[in-house]
Amino acid sequence: MWRLYHYSLCPFSRKVRLALAEKSVPTELVGEHPWEGRDAFLALNPAGQTPVVTSASEDVVLADSTAILEYFEETVRDSPLMGSGPLERAEVRRVIAWFDQKFFAEVGVILLQERMWHRIITRQPPNTTLLRQAHQAVEGHLDYLEYLLDHRRWLGGSTFSLADIAAAAHVSVVDYLGGIDWKTHDLAKQWYSAIKSRPSFRPLLTERTAGLVPPNHYDKLDF
Amino acid sequence: MWRLYHYSLCPFSRKVRLALAEKSVPTELVGEHPWEGRDAFLALNPAGQTPVVTSASEDVVLADSTAILEYFEETVRDSPLMGSGPLERAEVRRVIAWFDQKFFAEVGVILLQERMWHRIITRQPPNTTLLRQAHQAVEGHLDYLEYLLDHRRWLGGSTFSLADIAAAAHVSVVDYLGGIDWKTHDLAKQWYSAIKSRPSFRPLLTERTAGLVPPNHYDKLDF
Repeated sequence: MWRLYHYSLCPFSRKVRLALAEKSVPTELVGEHPWEGRDAFLALNPAGQTPVVTSASEDVVLADSTAILEYFEETVRDSPLMGSGPLERAEVRRVIAWFDQKFFAEVGVILLQERMWHRIITRQPPNTTLLRQAHQAVEGHLDYLEYLLDHRRWLGGSTFSLADIAAAAHVSVVDYLGGIDWKTHDLAKQWYSAIKSRPSFRPLLTERTAGLVPPNHYDKLDF
Repeated sequence: MWRLYHYSLCPFSRKVRLALAEKSVPTELVGEHPWEGRDAFLALNPAGQTPVVTSASEDVVLADSTAILEYFEETVRDSPLMGSGPLERAEVRRVIAWFDQKFFAEVGVILLQERMWHRIITRQPPNTTLLRQAHQAVEGHLDYLEYLLDHRRWLGGSTFSLADIAAAAHVSVVDYLGGIDWKTHDLAKQWYSAIKSRPSFRPLLTERTAGLVPPNHYDKLDF
């Protein structure tokens, strides 16, 4: 049994959680508020960030979502999630980086700051200029996602992969925070609906963060 | 022959450049200013960022420094740079992420903005508050680097790895921009001196960016 230190609205935690569920790796979830800087958590990961995965006895400690996912890809051969050759894997990793870096910087971190952090922690009004920029950026990212899906079955290639998991993890957090208008993105919606219906995704969609109500469509398969 | 689109002061480009040199992968360097958003470059990498590696005919295109390095680690078996088991590789990847994300966000990107971008592109004075914060952050990062070196021979474990290459790439850019005071960091200095003396590092240290003069010690092995 592995232990996953996670925060429910941390997209990097969601990415690891989904991947471990897809690979049927038995995992105990431990909720962590990384911003509180608990000493015992910092001892596990001096970077102070979720996710962290440990063995039950905590003699094995894995930090950084990419390092964690590569580890389980190497050690758990069932349900491979990285494609079958070096070039396919390079493309999967490129798409993961797109969402982990670009989507998160331009959209995710802004929504988390303005709609989560300011609402439930600092109790400040959101910065509407930043939110408007993030909403514009979402459109560009969904267009890119649809461009990829116009050319291939899944985001990283012909098979479901960590590229889809990473993208869905980031998209799901932004969707929880009301940041996505699905109306004009049919292809992205079809893709996300297919992912939402996977058993790995269901527990995550039913989880709620106190003080933050997601939009009505958030956990619906037909939205 | 591979082609590497790079910017000399981009730490992610340096990381790839050093790794390919360590693995003796024949590489042609093509200078790119990613901020200019050249159409032909955006066609290779819609994220618009260096580094990008292509085959000579450009039918193979690899983007994102992590995806690139994992690709060459998988396909070029000489000079392995990731450690020998899944746990060692997880630790190498964790340290790479530390420098790519945390060091770059807290130090590298600020120095690049204030000492490169504002000086040679927008010709504005630097923001001294941000620079002071970056200088304080450098101290914490060098302390962490020395903590790691107190416990192991190289940053990722017992062998020289991509963790050292990533760290040295990021440190070298900040050092070029005058952001590192080596006086109180003997152990970090020994480590960096050993890396500077590697043949892979020499060409990089002799390169200069127009309008930006590095400190005197920058390319010296004894500094």
